[in-house]
Amino acid sequence: MLSALQQKRLSYKPSVPPLLNDLSAVSLEPDGPSNLPDKLCKIFVKTHDLHKHTIKKSRKVDGRKLIVGALFSGGQAPGGHNVLAGLFDGITQIHPHSRLIGFIDGAGGLIENKCKTLDAAAIDSVRNQGGFDLIGASRIKIETEEQFEAAEKTVREQRLDALVIIGGDDSNTNAAFLAEFFAAKGLSISVIGVPKTIDADLRSDEIEISFGFDSACKTYSEMIGNIERDALSSKKYYHFIKLMGRSASHIALECALATCPNLTLISEEKRGLAQIVKEIADLIEERKKLGKNYGVILLPEGLIEFIPEIKELITLLNQILAKETDTDAAVKQLGEEQKAVFFSLPEKIQQQLLSERDPHGNVQVAKIETELFLIELVGKELEQRNLKFNPVHHYFGYEGRACLPSNFDANYCYALGKFGALVAREKVTGVILAIQHVSRSLAEWELTAVPIVSLMDFEMRAGKEKPVIAKALVDLESPAYLRFAQKRGGWKLDDAYQMPGPMQFFGDAEITDSAPLTLK
Amino acid sequence: MLSALQQKRLSYKPSVPPLLNDLSAVSLEPDGPSNLPDKLCKIFVKTHDLHKHTIKKSRKVDGRKLIVGALFSGGQAPGGHNVLAGLFDGITQIHPHSRLIGFIDGAGGLIENKCKTLDAAAIDSVRNQGGFDLIGASRIKIETEEQFEAAEKTVREQRLDALVIIGGDDSNTNAAFLAEFFAAKGLSISVIGVPKTIDADLRSDEIEISFGFDSACKTYSEMIGNIERDALSSKKYYHFIKLMGRSASHIALECALATCPNLTLISEEKRGLAQIVKEIADLIEERKKLGKNYGVILLPEGLIEFIPEIKELITLLNQILAKETDTDAAVKQLGEEQKAVFFSLPEKIQQQLLSERDPHGNVQVAKIETELFLIELVGKELEQRNLKFNPVHHYFGYEGRACLPSNFDANYCYALGKFGALVAREKVTGVILAIQHVSRSLAEWELTAVPIVSLMDFEMRAGKEKPVIAKALVDLESPAYLRFAQKRGGWKLDDAYQMPGPMQFFGDAEITDSAPLTLK
Repeated sequence: MLSALQQKRLSYKPSVPPLLNDLSAVSLEPDGPSNLPDKLCKIFVKTHDLHKHTIKKSRKVDGRKLIVGALFSGGQAPGGHNVLAGLFDGITQIHPHSRLIGFIDGAGGLIENKCKTLDAAAIDSVRNQGGFDLIGASRIKIETEEQFEAAEKTVREQRLDALVIIGGDDSNTNAAFLAEFFAAKGLSISVIGVPKTIDADLRSDEIEISFGFDSACKTYSEMIGNIERDALSSKKYYHFIKLMGRSASHIALECALATCPNLTLISEEKRGLAQIVKEIADLIEERKKLGKNYGVILLPEGLIEFIPEIKELITLLNQILAKETDTDAAVKQLGEEQKAVFFSLPEKIQQQLLSERDPHGNVQVAKIETELFLIELVGKELEQRNLKFNPVHHYFGYEGRACLPSNFDANYCYALGKFGALVAREKVTGVILAIQHVSRSLAEWELTAVPIVSLMDFEMRAGKEKPVIAKALVDLESPAYLRFAQKRGGWKLDDAYQMPGPMQFFGDAEITDSAPLTLK
Repeated sequence: MLSALQQKRLSYKPSVPPLLNDLSAVSLEPDGPSNLPDKLCKIFVKTHDLHKHTIKKSRKVDGRKLIVGALFSGGQAPGGHNVLAGLFDGITQIHPHSRLIGFIDGAGGLIENKCKTLDAAAIDSVRNQGGFDLIGASRIKIETEEQFEAAEKTVREQRLDALVIIGGDDSNTNAAFLAEFFAAKGLSISVIGVPKTIDADLRSDEIEISFGFDSACKTYSEMIGNIERDALSSKKYYHFIKLMGRSASHIALECALATCPNLTLISEEKRGLAQIVKEIADLIEERKKLGKNYGVILLPEGLIEFIPEIKELITLLNQILAKETDTDAAVKQLGEEQKAVFFSLPEKIQQQLLSERDPHGNVQVAKIETELFLIELVGKELEQRNLKFNPVHHYFGYEGRACLPSNFDANYCYALGKFGALVAREKVTGVILAIQHVSRSLAEWELTAVPIVSLMDFEMRAGKEKPVIAKALVDLESPAYLRFAQKRGGWKLDDAYQMPGPMQFFGDAEITDSAPLTLK
């Protein structure tokens, strides 16, 4: 049952760039093919010379009936339902008899042809709502020949004109392979990717931001700001707050800009463990001199894998444990230096490094409790300085992945969906939908369909070189990072805490419609 | 620096019951003295026959200049700053030259006469803001003869007409003793208590709810609802969410009514450990049969001390460890039954029971990680049934103690403050401010100043019988609990999740002005 606020949000009308209002008055303009390296051309035989397309005004275009399938891949991001709503409104605007089909639980539904028609009632029930629960999601990928063929079978049976894959870097890589496979099979279907991930690590020149990031960060920032205000009143705790976001530190950076905590670690700075522990201990010592025995420290989830000596240790352990199942024996095979690093770590972390492994045998970095680990090491360092602190730890992640989408995400996702309908009508395949200048007025948003292959690089995966979309990390030259780097010194000792408060949906646009701070 | 939303909230004008609009047109009417037991009368020699007072219309009352001191005692609760704002607006309405003095960092400021004048600028900077940071707070209590005398000295030096103590059960008990002490010293000062605590365990016939509970629960419920929606989409995790609230389960009950999770444990049901573990494991097993490998379970912080066999173990350990410092030896002194219970607990909990002790040697129940403990025991139980689950744990507390107050708390606190000004003018002492029917329209709110002594019972504290305000636990006969008890069966297998979303401050009153569900 929907809450009163959810009910209200059902009737929110997302704002879209003016060009998307009437799809019969626009078309796509090709922009010249991507110049791909030979290595990629050999893999994407049919789809290496796809064009980038931008939206433009046109004479009235007669629409035809479209059947479009859509699926969610990977973790939730607020706004996903609005992509479906935009798609639905777009294709039914193009032709009233168009049909939207949702595949159940991600790519699994595509493989097994488990789907349901998303009619007006279904779409209306999830407008501006969080979660992916209308059709579910999964991390299943289409990898084997059989899976590709099963997907083809589904696509043929459903007579799809387009397949929209709403996902992150891996899912969009997968979308490119599907586009190539279908093209090779002579299928006239558009495979269209939509950039989804709260982690914001799917970026390119054209993709400013993935959807969900804004809402998730606003939710985390609400909590962080509340904790800051609490620290300021009770004056006795150091709050170590770990934030979701896998490898990249975009979420930590955005939340730092929104809340101005005393310290924020950015994984991409690749600092050594001793340096990190010293910085935190120094902060606590300096604040103590000012009579301040409290503070707030943000940690990105991926921190540990960027600490050079631990990264080396993890890489080596991954190699050894691929062959050696006895963990004690594995540790003995480490070099002297790595052994020293390993045994300098708290016992619990040693255990986690050995036991928390994914099916490929790799350490599951997200499961390592970095916040506890740092608290322990900082505590030891402080003990040597005859100092004490009261640490409290938090981990925010699941709280923000399925929240009600902010107006920004609601608008952005709806625009992506409606744009997707246009791309489907125009039979463009192998592209990911991109909107630029999203922090400016709607009239300035630039909509582009970008060939996914143009975003690809080669990476080693499971011992083989594979074309993938590389995760976009925090760029230490970016304006957002530089702004943060310039300000953070002042946040250490002064308490410049900002408390953004809960996301607001009604009232002044200044408060309800703000875009992510890292985009400004 | 204030965020855009905080800025906006500065200008929110709280709504108060009509009688509070013009304090010159109202006075207090005594309602007959409390009938206290002899034992209390002997302790409260000067103040045992205080009257309950209710507000009534009167002919125009000429105000005189008042000097009022205020302090925050204990943990934060959203709305505290509005009590100060109401007090300030009240006493300056009574006489423009009245002065509000804030004692710094709680009772410590009173003892050491550390204070600051809270002028219009200071008050205007915190209207409708969370936290207690304008003057800080602490858990310091006035206990020794010297402390009472120091407080008297401050009160005389500052020429206070009234001292307002904003705090929970212990702080209001303390207020009653101060009122008695000042009266015995012939000081004409009103000591006035204000019921503050997010835990909502300070209740009586007249005190429906303590302030802060509403905002804190709305913040926790936002997070719980978000996690529920996440669970519904990703379909693979069991979220164990522990909620702050010390002994009583009011917060868990309120959040359960707001979010309808699959299971909510209520400490006051006093169920055995095996029964609790079985219920959770049964839930997981039954849901698995429906293909549902996910769920959300709420746990009150105080759960563990209500589990009969653990309560007995803790009581015994407290007694033994008061004399025996060697923990191994202490365990050996346990009876056979308690030993069996002790060793049935996960090792980490065994350690916490022995090591996490307060200065009186008592187990600090709040520090015991009940959520991890239950996850471990449920995991073992499931293993025996050849079942698995993916648990995730959360603990929400600090996120909600200092958040922006909801409109409900902003209004309620402002009314309490303004009522406090009236009570100060009327020279009534030893009372706690109470408002009834707060979930109805403002015109129906009933304002009463209740003698604190009338709330007191005797309890054993540190081996001595002492008069205290007993913590109000969840009443298993209350309408709120019965409503919960009636509905919870349906929440187990069906996912009736409710997602209240972030607190809203603008727009429809239905959404912005709702009162706690447990009051309805």
